[in-house]
Amino acid sequence: MPHIALPAGLPGISAGFAFRPETAKPMRELAHVLLHGPSTLTGAERELIATFVSSRNDCYFCQTSHGAAAAAHLGGDFALVDEVKRNFEDAGVSAKLKALLVIAGKVQQDGKNVLPEDIARARSEGATDLELHDTVLIAAAFCMYNRYVDGLGTWQPTNQSMYAEMGKHLAENGYLTSSLQR
Amino acid sequence: MPHIALPAGLPGISAGFAFRPETAKPMRELAHVLLHGPSTLTGAERELIATFVSSRNDCYFCQTSHGAAAAAHLGGDFALVDEVKRNFEDAGVSAKLKALLVIAGKVQQDGKNVLPEDIARARSEGATDLELHDTVLIAAAFCMYNRYVDGLGTWQPTNQSMYAEMGKHLAENGYLTSSLQR
Repeated sequence: MPHIALPAGLPGISAGFAFRPETAKPMRELAHVLLHGPSTLTGAERELIATFVSSRNDCYFCQTSHGAAAAAHLGGDFALVDEVKRNFEDAGVSAKLKALLVIAGKVQQDGKNVLPEDIARARSEGATDLELHDTVLIAAAFCMYNRYVDGLGTWQPTNQSMYAEMGKHLAENGYLTSSLQR
Repeated sequence: MPHIALPAGLPGISAGFAFRPETAKPMRELAHVLLHGPSTLTGAERELIATFVSSRNDCYFCQTSHGAAAAAHLGGDFALVDEVKRNFEDAGVSAKLKALLVIAGKVQQDGKNVLPEDIARARSEGATDLELHDTVLIAAAFCMYNRYVDGLGTWQPTNQSMYAEMGKHLAENGYLTSSLQR
């Protein structure tokens, strides 16, 4: 039961976006630039960072929808998404992504936890300044999205096929329009 | 010393914004709608919520700049800003704002901490659904801005007159343009 009178039938963040289009617009744009815009990080890498942070923040809607988007980028590999959430250091992802996930995990707790040696490790694995910037901001932004979704008490259905379809739409089309308004 | 090659001489979030204009645009817009756009919450109330959350996140740049913006809205009352940060339940602010600060403080930790009784208290003090929405989102958004500023290791000067001037500019003009590019 949402804490305020959100439009019925819209899951997770969609309900907040429909309630307040003025804030939805920049929130959609930010997600689109970070997760779907031009980048030397792949869509899968960026969605895995978003999924990992949402998992650490225990936000069911965000970790499931972005996990599905990551899986869609990975040709349906939901098992890899679960590995990253459970223990990314042993997951089948690149050494660069592991180093970026260390930074994302620290930002999820407190930006001040990021140490020069965390940055040095990521650089030694080939991370650029722009990739480091975007990793910090994806992690920071999901600390917003997660709290928004949970703080409004939004409806978060557990129908996995809905998330799989949503993830596919997000991976293909990005974040400027709702996957529910096709 | 910033973790990446940010433009020199720009304090706090300004450096991140100059480094990545594509993400700066929606981040500025979101702050502008929430803190400076039309609202039944005053500018002072909204800046106090932002300052309080930034203080709980221990982000020096954000709590000082938004604290100065709140003080500017309050005719220079920096003492009230400090009271709100220290112990808002005993501060000289409205019962409605105190109830909203309870919600903001919970969102700062985890959106799921917000309870129906927190919402009921705010409603009994006159808070509307839109005010509740914006309180949740201001708190969530500052969990992003704070982590962004700290996670990049931005330069955060301690020159109080710079913050006072910045706060005055923000209170008067909002967030769409930099207070440093006048």
